Amino acid sequence: MKLYTSAASPFARKVIVAALELGLGDQLVLETAGVSPVGSNPALAAHNPLGKIPTLLLEDGRALFDSRVIVDFLDSLTARRLVPADGPERWAILTEQALADGLMDAALLARYESALRPPEFLWKDWLEGQMTKIHRGLDHLETAPRNTGPDVTLADIAVACVLGYLDYRFADEDWRSSRPRLAAFYAEFSSRPSWLASRPDA
Amino acid sequence: MKLYTSAASPFARKVIVAALELGLGDQLVLETAGVSPVGSNPALAAHNPLGKIPTLLLEDGRALFDSRVIVDFLDSLTARRLVPADGPERWAILTEQALADGLMDAALLARYESALRPPEFLWKDWLEGQMTKIHRGLDHLETAPRNTGPDVTLADIAVACVLGYLDYRFADEDWRSSRPRLAAFYAEFSSRPSWLASRPDA
Repeated sequence: MKLYTSAASPFARKVIVAALELGLGDQLVLETAGVSPVGSNPALAAHNPLGKIPTLLLEDGRALFDSRVIVDFLDSLTARRLVPADGPERWAILTEQALADGLMDAALLARYESALRPPEFLWKDWLEGQMTKIHRGLDHLETAPRNTGPDVTLADIAVACVLGYLDYRFADEDWRSSRPRLAAFYAEFSSRPSWLASRPDA
Repeated sequence: MKLYTSAASPFARKVIVAALELGLGDQLVLETAGVSPVGSNPALAAHNPLGKIPTLLLEDGRALFDSRVIVDFLDSLTARRLVPADGPERWAILTEQALADGLMDAALLARYESALRPPEFLWKDWLEGQMTKIHRGLDHLETAPRNTGPDVTLADIAVACVLGYLDYRFADEDWRSSRPRLAAFYAEFSSRPSWLASRPDA
């Protein structure tokens, strides 16, 4: 299976970490694809009209996207499950993933606003709106239990990917000092082989 | 169950149409929530730190979001399934939903750029980038089979919600003339009771 990816993307990292945690790492061939909301990548767009990564290309030519769909598919391939098939735990984990994905979206929109958009078109209210979501979301996650053992769930992986992205692109954001539990979780999660193998600078 | 919603949101409409198609309409109490990427709604943010609709509040106080998670939950409550539990069809439908959701995201970002952002901060390249995704995505959907009978899937519902939102907010976009199959699908889908009951102006 070929995974269109990019080293900086937190959504792509979520897929790669999930694949490694499921023991499927050797089945993924990674292909770096340059993407931008203001540019086009015809090779990628042929498989995913949104022109976004991650996109998974199966051996039979089918393309799966986005990150949630790819992880749902990978999760069906092994006995180990990152999301239970049913029960209240399923929707709790999926909602936490949705929260983490929403924070990644907010962080990407903030990044586009401050680093991609020409500075004369920057709208401060928009940037602040996205950062408010991030702060409020992290405060919420600070109160939630996390796993760092062999039983990590998709929610743990997604939360780690948000925090890793903030460290990578928003190094001035001190998200740790008022959120000690999240900081402890991230410190421990960061030693996982799946995490080390998927570092943006790896 | 209480669904925080907004008449204009294509994501909220997806949830409402899905609930009606599943026969769960009478279990949903709709509560309109004003939201904006540059403003805050404390009542909603208490349940969803992203401050986004749709958000579903269960009787026991748990909150589920976003639209995909809510539909996944609703789909588990009845024998009728909008997404099969496994098999290739599952990931084909989920990928089409992801495409439709991506088009809704692009349309919302285009709408924010042209109607919410102060005009002096409008960046033409951004707006064009989002509209390109929409056109390319619709061209892709034009080639895909659709259902309009009792066997509609979540993909059909999501695609209808994109098209309905384009008609509602981008009335100048003539998406039909070069996409006759999509136009025929939408015309037929538009007569469904679930569609009529969830009209933005209903």
